[in-house]
Amino acid sequence: MTQQQILKLFEAVQHGKLQPREAVERLKHLPFEDLGFAKLDHHRLLRQGMPETVYAPGKTPEQVAQIVRQMLKRSPNVLVTRANRVIAARIRRFAPSAVFHPLSGAIAIRRDRTLHGKGTVLVVSAGSSDIPVAEEALVTAELMGNPVAHLYDVGVAGIHRLLDNRESLTAARVIICVAGMEGALPSVVAGLVAAPVIAVPTSVGYGASFGGIAALLGMLNSCASNVAVVNIDNGFGAACFASMVNRL
Amino acid sequence: MTQQQILKLFEAVQHGKLQPREAVERLKHLPFEDLGFAKLDHHRLLRQGMPETVYAPGKTPEQVAQIVRQMLKRSPNVLVTRANRVIAARIRRFAPSAVFHPLSGAIAIRRDRTLHGKGTVLVVSAGSSDIPVAEEALVTAELMGNPVAHLYDVGVAGIHRLLDNRESLTAARVIICVAGMEGALPSVVAGLVAAPVIAVPTSVGYGASFGGIAALLGMLNSCASNVAVVNIDNGFGAACFASMVNRL
Amino acid sequence: MTQQQILKLFEAVQHGKLQPREAVERLKHLPFEDLGFAKLDHHRLLRQGMPETVYAPGKTPEQVAQIVRQMLKRSPNVLVTRANRVIAARIRRFAPSAVFHPLSGAIAIRRDRTLHGKGTVLVVSAGSSDIPVAEEALVTAELMGNPVAHLYDVGVAGIHRLLDNRESLTAARVIICVAGMEGALPSVVAGLVAAPVIAVPTSVGYGASFGGIAALLGMLNSCASNVAVVNIDNGFGAACFASMVNRL
Amino acid sequence: MTQQQILKLFEAVQHGKLQPREAVERLKHLPFEDLGFAKLDHHRLLRQGMPETVYAPGKTPEQVAQIVRQMLKRSPNVLVTRANRVIAARIRRFAPSAVFHPLSGAIAIRRDRTLHGKGTVLVVSAGSSDIPVAEEALVTAELMGNPVAHLYDVGVAGIHRLLDNRESLTAARVIICVAGMEGALPSVVAGLVAAPVIAVPTSVGYGASFGGIAALLGMLNSCASNVAVVNIDNGFGAACFASMVNRL
Amino acid sequence: MTQQQILKLFEAVQHGKLQPREAVERLKHLPFEDLGFAKLDHHRLLRQGMPETVYAPGKTPEQVAQIVRQMLKRSPNVLVTRANRVIAARIRRFAPSAVFHPLSGAIAIRRDRTLHGKGTVLVVSAGSSDIPVAEEALVTAELMGNPVAHLYDVGVAGIHRLLDNRESLTAARVIICVAGMEGALPSVVAGLVAAPVIAVPTSVGYGASFGGIAALLGMLNSCASNVAVVNIDNGFGAACFASMVNRL
Amino acid sequence: MTQQQILKLFEAVQHGKLQPREAVERLKHLPFEDLGFAKLDHHRLLRQGMPETVYAPGKTPEQVAQIVRQMLKRSPNVLVTRANRVIAARIRRFAPSAVFHPLSGAIAIRRDRTLHGKGTVLVVSAGSSDIPVAEEALVTAELMGNPVAHLYDVGVAGIHRLLDNRESLTAARVIICVAGMEGALPSVVAGLVAAPVIAVPTSVGYGASFGGIAALLGMLNSCASNVAVVNIDNGFGAACFASMVNRL
Amino acid sequence: MTQQQILKLFEAVQHGKLQPREAVERLKHLPFEDLGFAKLDHHRLLRQGMPETVYAPGKTPEQVAQIVRQMLKRSPNVLVTRANRVIAARIRRFAPSAVFHPLSGAIAIRRDRTLHGKGTVLVVSAGSSDIPVAEEALVTAELMGNPVAHLYDVGVAGIHRLLDNRESLTAARVIICVAGMEGALPSVVAGLVAAPVIAVPTSVGYGASFGGIAALLGMLNSCASNVAVVNIDNGFGAACFASMVNRL
Amino acid sequence: MTQQQILKLFEAVQHGKLQPREAVERLKHLPFEDLGFAKLDHHRLLRQGMPETVYAPGKTPEQVAQIVRQMLKRSPNVLVTRANRVIAARIRRFAPSAVFHPLSGAIAIRRDRTLHGKGTVLVVSAGSSDIPVAEEALVTAELMGNPVAHLYDVGVAGIHRLLDNRESLTAARVIICVAGMEGALPSVVAGLVAAPVIAVPTSVGYGASFGGIAALLGMLNSCASNVAVVNIDNGFGAACFASMVNRL
Repeated sequence: MTQQQILKLFEAVQHGKLQPREAVERLKHLPFEDLGFAKLDHHRLLRQGMPETVYAPGKTPEQVAQIVRQMLKRSPNVLVTRANRVIAARIRRFAPSAVFHPLSGAIAIRRDRTLHGKGTVLVVSAGSSDIPVAEEALVTAELMGNPVAHLYDVGVAGIHRLLDNRESLTAARVIICVAGMEGALPSVVAGLVAAPVIAVPTSVGYGASFGGIAALLGMLNSCASNVAVVNIDNGFGAACFASMVNRL
Repeated sequence: MTQQQILKLFEAVQHGKLQPREAVERLKHLPFEDLGFAKLDHHRLLRQGMPETVYAPGKTPEQVAQIVRQMLKRSPNVLVTRANRVIAARIRRFAPSAVFHPLSGAIAIRRDRTLHGKGTVLVVSAGSSDIPVAEEALVTAELMGNPVAHLYDVGVAGIHRLLDNRESLTAARVIICVAGMEGALPSVVAGLVAAPVIAVPTSVGYGASFGGIAALLGMLNSCASNVAVVNIDNGFGAACFASMVNRL
Repeated sequence: MTQQQILKLFEAVQHGKLQPREAVERLKHLPFEDLGFAKLDHHRLLRQGMPETVYAPGKTPEQVAQIVRQMLKRSPNVLVTRANRVIAARIRRFAPSAVFHPLSGAIAIRRDRTLHGKGTVLVVSAGSSDIPVAEEALVTAELMGNPVAHLYDVGVAGIHRLLDNRESLTAARVIICVAGMEGALPSVVAGLVAAPVIAVPTSVGYGASFGGIAALLGMLNSCASNVAVVNIDNGFGAACFASMVNRL
Repeated sequence: MTQQQILKLFEAVQHGKLQPREAVERLKHLPFEDLGFAKLDHHRLLRQGMPETVYAPGKTPEQVAQIVRQMLKRSPNVLVTRANRVIAARIRRFAPSAVFHPLSGAIAIRRDRTLHGKGTVLVVSAGSSDIPVAEEALVTAELMGNPVAHLYDVGVAGIHRLLDNRESLTAARVIICVAGMEGALPSVVAGLVAAPVIAVPTSVGYGASFGGIAALLGMLNSCASNVAVVNIDNGFGAACFASMVNRL
Repeated sequence: MTQQQILKLFEAVQHGKLQPREAVERLKHLPFEDLGFAKLDHHRLLRQGMPETVYAPGKTPEQVAQIVRQMLKRSPNVLVTRANRVIAARIRRFAPSAVFHPLSGAIAIRRDRTLHGKGTVLVVSAGSSDIPVAEEALVTAELMGNPVAHLYDVGVAGIHRLLDNRESLTAARVIICVAGMEGALPSVVAGLVAAPVIAVPTSVGYGASFGGIAALLGMLNSCASNVAVVNIDNGFGAACFASMVNRL
Repeated sequence: MTQQQILKLFEAVQHGKLQPREAVERLKHLPFEDLGFAKLDHHRLLRQGMPETVYAPGKTPEQVAQIVRQMLKRSPNVLVTRANRVIAARIRRFAPSAVFHPLSGAIAIRRDRTLHGKGTVLVVSAGSSDIPVAEEALVTAELMGNPVAHLYDVGVAGIHRLLDNRESLTAARVIICVAGMEGALPSVVAGLVAAPVIAVPTSVGYGASFGGIAALLGMLNSCASNVAVVNIDNGFGAACFASMVNRL
Repeated sequence: MTQQQILKLFEAVQHGKLQPREAVERLKHLPFEDLGFAKLDHHRLLRQGMPETVYAPGKTPEQVAQIVRQMLKRSPNVLVTRANRVIAARIRRFAPSAVFHPLSGAIAIRRDRTLHGKGTVLVVSAGSSDIPVAEEALVTAELMGNPVAHLYDVGVAGIHRLLDNRESLTAARVIICVAGMEGALPSVVAGLVAAPVIAVPTSVGYGASFGGIAALLGMLNSCASNVAVVNIDNGFGAACFASMVNRL
Repeated sequence: MTQQQILKLFEAVQHGKLQPREAVERLKHLPFEDLGFAKLDHHRLLRQGMPETVYAPGKTPEQVAQIVRQMLKRSPNVLVTRANRVIAARIRRFAPSAVFHPLSGAIAIRRDRTLHGKGTVLVVSAGSSDIPVAEEALVTAELMGNPVAHLYDVGVAGIHRLLDNRESLTAARVIICVAGMEGALPSVVAGLVAAPVIAVPTSVGYGASFGGIAALLGMLNSCASNVAVVNIDNGFGAACFASMVNRL
């Protein structure tokens, strides 16, 4: 039932087909959104190319395939995160354009390639073992209609690698910065640009890295003021946030 | 605006005084509760003797007094928590019946003494230094219209003191159990009764008690299944929860 | 030996069949409960339909089966938690009415369907991955003789789903609220009802969810005062506590 | 020395006034930025109305005053954070337009009122004790040239207050969401809007709130994907990040 | 009422002065200990010279004095812990033999000097800042009737100081080992003796000592098997445990 | 080289067979213990029936067997901890008297059954899942020459079970108290006896038990003063400490 | 492009082959190091015998082999850490001199045996289960051109073993000290020498050792002032740091 | 007693003035160091200009003054850490050359200015609030006879400031790197030099910096391999370690 239907309710009363008391009663049982509350219009987002997403862990290939098949009916683009080769093969049977990204386990089906982001989303990462999380962010950002670029393996202990790529950094409209261990990269990057930097700690490291806590704390305590942080290993979330910013 | 007024809206349409489109527009700007959503009727609670509450820390005696004076206009009973003698004196100027409880710092104004709880709320505490939190629970529970009783200084290292009071324990309908240090009391109490036991860890202790964390963890891991836990030192919250249960 | 037997002891002394000194000696060696202490009458609980329970992890299917077989002799209803299909099949050989709930791994044998709870216990959960814990709570509450209902997948980031079900919420006498990640659901639910809300944090989530600690802390710090908390993933414990409240 | 001067270096070589070897040597000792590296042009930011900022704690009123006096020479707008009445009085002697915000301790000198943000930055907060942090965010965002609005005291345990203000929420371009205790507000707000939500945990609460850790963890684990987080009590940082986004 | 009185109860029944049913009823209301349960006979302990103890923090000098005065009526020896000079002066008015130990704040009144311990309790400590806790242990152990000795400032970074005192170490029957910082001393000491070593972590240190947690963990993980641990700064508890062992 | 040999060194000098300077040089290279330092005489302990011990995890059955075979040459009693059936079978080939305890994985070879402990070491445990750790303590204590007894499944939520066994408790000279979850048992037990109680937290539990931390903290914060604590799951260490106390 | 090429740039301008403006533009796109910044000359290090290193976990034997083969082209010495027998066999096919160290999993290819360290690097370890980490440090230090020695199984609970080796300790120029459990060894060792001691906590231990945190905290809080610490289990890092010191 | 005296012992035996048995007995009671064990010769260190040190907190100005006066008799250089102006004034009465450093509270008396370090110890710090710890390191290193230099306020968010000082960095023989907040500076610095870097986390920061833990974890997880770490705020310890390295 839509607001159109609420209008009809009033019209029915106007035309004497419905008593006011009955109308009030029907109104009380209307779903939330029909009453004009701020329910996010997910269909609008989907029409703009925002993908629907499946989190694969804990589901059989068959279950993932079924969910994806349903999603493809209403959404041109679909993303599966943390999947594997078997799932990808199963999906390609009915969606041959599905691309599997082996490091992150992401599967992207992109049938609508309209760009919605206004600038480039740059994904920067520190060590080679941070790449799976960085790749998840990159694939997600691209599927959400952003021009994307990446800059990998530019950890702070070899600061020259980062500085050699200063043009990529300043060219980006939004930066996603992925790092494990001490999580220092976002602070350095944020000091080199005037763009918002979304920091993603990774669970990479051993000993006192505590599964990403060291990196998380480092990023929360960044001495740069254009840094905000998402959860450990949450490349997907960083890309969602970046997309929302990049559409402004 | 109330549902009565929504009815009038429909009647206005019915009588041709308002166009349906205008009515929909007015409806969209109605406050949440007028549309029949589940907003808790705080006034009903107040009519039943539930007190309004002020948390005193960070407020001047004058500020607390002003708030209390306002509350007394709409609520017969008022509770101030974590206050002190100065605040109590200030309040007694216009509310001479206010009672100050020095251990917990609670100030209770009880003008409506109707009982709403169906049984006794018993407050049990372990050590003498847990009494401030226990007293906060006791005063709150009483002000909320519960018959109350207490049993203090029955720590588990002297189990006989607890067992000597077995009749009080079994007579209670709801038990609030306050303990610091190892937080073992709720497990022992819960094993002796068939009533729900609400456990309150206190920040009493030193060294590895970590401001109440040891007690909190002990209570969460209770081997008794009729124990639920509230936050550290939260005597007030335990009494609220107990009152809600005791009115069932 | 029961209090009846203590009476006989006095009668024996009365009739000169026993010397006072001997009687005192026998008394000193009586078990605890015979002396009138508050020992919970588990048999009474069982007669009222409270199930006996087996925690399956670490036991072979054969061991679980043997324990269940013993329990069925004295208790009409039996619950096995955290089991699997193999154990369920083994139990159905001698208890064909046993129902296996695959998400939670609970096995319920319910031969006595008397209702003991006075109202509905509603189990509310946030995300689809919280359902195993929610199901454990639901199955347990039902087996303990409560009318039950559930409301799943009503996480706070889509608040309209919760509000669309406002009638279920207000109809419940006791609410069990299961949530992982940020654990915010109990606060929102508690603000919509006047019933006690028992919060169960789940270990769902990744990164900084720390196996349920984030949700646990969120619930302990709830700004609503009708919330109490049980241990992480403890759907069983929440249902026990809810049952005890619902019988009041 | 600027790039202009590097040009002159080459011209000097071109004109035979300098030997190539000498030029290389001079080049090696040039400051970093002159060589074309990505050094953030702070002066450009200042020209656009970005304020310079002093963190007051640990400095005497005299010291703060001296620093502010210096800053006012090169920057039209200056912000002092975590100050007090005494410092404000000292500053007003030479900067009478300085406005002191007593809850947050912020002092704002705003001589350039150009708007740089493209939409409204809305500051939402949960409880009344979160207001100091919210105010710091609000004052900072305004001084950075953003149209601002605020919505206070809309905690999740009274969800209707939030929903009654649905128009303010959807009107904002960027939202800063400040909450202590369980930190659930950002998740609920983010589910109601399509804008980026910057979450600020506050150290408000007691017991197991652990000085804001409970709220921080809640926000990092938000089930909404348009949420990013800054450090505990960091209203200033949230406003900086929001400003950077709002200028995109 | 004592077991003597239970005997009289039976005799009353025997002599027909009391009906069995009445006797059972009286029995049910007897205190715990009268029924022969294991209640620790504190008076026996006191007769053997175990002191009664007052924990001074949070009490006024007057309150402490009153409690001590009461204790002196039933106990020859009294200990006040964590007190100060003012309290000591107040107590000396009526108990001139009270000795104040300024480092630990302990006040000892020792009117019964009988030795109950069978060997020497040696208190060993690492750094000079551990001495307050060591002194509390020493004073307590002495007041409990143990021959005592101490060995201070023998931290592991100067292992020769410890080895130079090897005779004191091997002469002790029970050792209390007090250390902050890395808490390594108990492991080294325990490797040099065949006596039980009671380890007391202190909150001495800064940075990552976390108020004694580093020392506590070090002691719990001791590679020596004759070490057991008490709470941080708990010199009193260590002496109690040592006394109980030394009386065996 | 023994002190006997140092004596010979002096005699050689006395008899002119060695120059003083040479003697000093030889002395400087003597091993530590020969110089009279407090090196624990392990052989003396072994002669008294203290077993040698192998920690099995990380070793092949063959490796464990070889080590045990070596130990049997110099020690009548040998203990293997955390082993399994395969290792036990391998050892029984050459030590047919080896007894395997399946719950704890302990293998005990006891060829010398002399009693060295002066009283009974009682092992008390809370839940059935604590028994592996309790069994390790029991087997170890017995092998070290202590008369032992045990009291299992006497958790604090059913306090009557503990009280029904009050005679066992008061008969023990040293008590080892094993408990997981909230770790409350040692406090209750210690309040019932005048013996030293050695508390062993176990890693039993789930959710917020944190692998035994909850129990560990509970025990460290015990309100009873005759409790000392060893590491989580360290049944072996508790038995060593108890043995050392029981030989005093 | 090298500084030589910058010189040519100036010469081209000098000779009129290039316009100053063009030269500036080329300069702006030069890589970082060419402009004279402090980029570490890794080739120089390699020429001095510093090995290149592969961290094996997460890579297939084939992948490790390929990387090693590449490294051998530019570096005489190559180290693989945390590998296994299969990887070692695969590498020996083309590098028969590769030595596999089974405890640490290190594979060392050492074709250049020049010594670069000026004294001996001594690796000291506490328990036998610390040896894998100690071996990683030893192999790494040797491959980096240091004379090495080791002293294993000298835990602090048997202090004589350490003291018996006092000559090895004082002979070392740099000491790496590896210990798990309470992590006390570095403090004791550092007190016996005037050399820098690099402490490596290991994840050895159980219960409250928390995967090495207890040892880490112990070492950070060392009462000796010649101790610095690296990450848990980081034998490789300790050897790198030691090598850098030993070349001074 | 020295080894000279041991020689005399043998000579006495040689000359028949002492019986071998008596000599052995005297030997057994000799202090540790006389027997040739590795006792650090502190006097040798002092002769080389190593200062004696007093930690001022918890001592009265008079107490500090007395200790310093004693130290000056045997040591040319004396350091007082964490002192204040009052203590400095008190010391200057008898040691007019004492220099007070107000930021760190260090007081340095330097009467012997011999240089013992072979190169420069450079102290680098991130933010202005890290300077107190950096100053403590600088003053200590200088007093220990090292040529020193410092480079303050070169935090990683403004990487150009660090790079502009590349010559200072490469000129240092040992670097002490002080940083709070995210603790990223040591990683960046270590990547720019071939010298050992000693990292000092500071307790600077708020919110999730947790009194320096964030910085500590960042440093322990540094991706650079020439970094070792000391305790939070331990500028003194870092300088001691650096001095020991710089004398190699």
